This record gives sequence, structure tokens and C-alpha cells, in this order.
Amino acid sequence: MEKKMDPVCGLDVALHYIGGKWKPILLFHLQHQPRRFGELKRLAAGISEKVLIQQLRDLTDAGILTRHDFREVPPRVEYTITGFGRTLALALQPLCEWGNANRQTLPAAEASADA
Amino acid sequence: MEKKMDPVCGLDVALHYIGGKWKPILLFHLQHQPRRFGELKRLAAGISEKVLIQQLRDLTDAGILTRHDFREVPPRVEYTITGFGRTLALALQPLCEWGNANRQTLPAAEASADA
Repeated sequence: MEKKMDPVCGLDVALHYIGGKWKPILLFHLQHQPRRFGELKRLAAGISEKVLIQQLRDLTDAGILTRHDFREVPPRVEYTITGFGRTLALALQPLCEWGNANRQTLPAAEASADA
Repeated sequence: MEKKMDPVCGLDVALHYIGGKWKPILLFHLQHQPRRFGELKRLAAGISEKVLIQQLRDLTDAGILTRHDFREVPPRVEYTITGFGRTLALALQPLCEWGNANRQTLPAAEASADA
């Protein structure tokens, strides 16, 4: 019998890092290469600049990404996945794929919602 | 460039099915064998009967589990994972394991909270 402190599935821990709409998407785009802020804004279509800044700060504070400011003009800031972040991206991959493969099973209202 | 309707990570779809505290835990316990209601109540330590009933109903309605009432006295009701549910449990496994392996990285307050 499991105790409360020893859960059988650590999904809650994973969601502490990548819960919400945007973080899995950002992680996906960063898993293989560093990206500039503007690039991420374009790739995560629909995200506001304010929300993107906050999400990237959360991921950086959590040790999932590192941020490098090249101190250039025009500004050039790059985000790179860490080794720790890469382990998370790898573990997340099968569930991402499952979700994409089964999106059509969602009730129509949710599938089309901007959830 | 991705469109809003074609997300790169289907985590949102997966969480439609197994979001929240208890569903991943129930899925874990059901992935290899059918379980009776009372058994699940014991395995998901700390769950209330009311919440367990609702979670099992959600999972059954979503096609993740089937429910079989043997119509015996005393009552015997068994839950079994479906083929669809099994694909989800498999895809979830790496993220469960990642979370368990990294639980100690959570801020202390969250790690000990009954989240």
C-alpha cells in the first residue's frame, strides 16, 4: 500500500515544471537547439510577449533553461535547454505524442478551445 | 510555424483525461489488473469515497476504464482498463518515473503538500 508521501506516479512533480498551456510547447521548441526570444514568440503562435517573458523566467528559475544575454544592439537573448530540462523533455515526449494522436477524441468544444 | 489548432505537444489532451491528483494514481493501479472499488480506495490512500466515485466515473465515461457490477451481495464492482486506457498509461509512464525521480527538486513546501 502506498503512502501519501510516496506517490506511485510523479505526474504532479512534472506538472510543477511544465504545467499550463505554453511550457510544454516552449520545451518542445527548445529541446534540440537554443532559440532567441523573438523566435520563440513566433513559434509559440498566439502567446503574448508578457506571458512569454513570464514562462521563460519560470523555466529558467526552475533550472529547465538557461538564458544568455549577448548584450548586443539590437538585443539578442538566447534560451538553451539544460541537461535537467532535457531529461524532462524526453520523458514528456510519449505523452505529447499520445495527446496529438488522440486530439480528435476530445469533446468538440474542448478540442477547438484555446485551452 | 505551428498554428494554434495544431499544437506541437499534446499534453493538454492527455491532461483532459488524467489531470488532477488522483487519476494518474488510479490509472497506475489499474494498468495491469482489474481492481475492485474497495481495493482502489485502499490503494489510493487518502482519497474520499465521494471523490473516488467521481474520478472512476470520469475515467469510465472517457473510455479509459470499464465498470462491471457483478450484482452480488455484498456488492462487487470491478474496474478494468480499456485498450485505449492502456495506451495512455504506457505514454504516461516515463513522465511518472521522471517525476518520482525528481520529487526532491521541488520546493520543500510543495513536496510535502497534499497537492
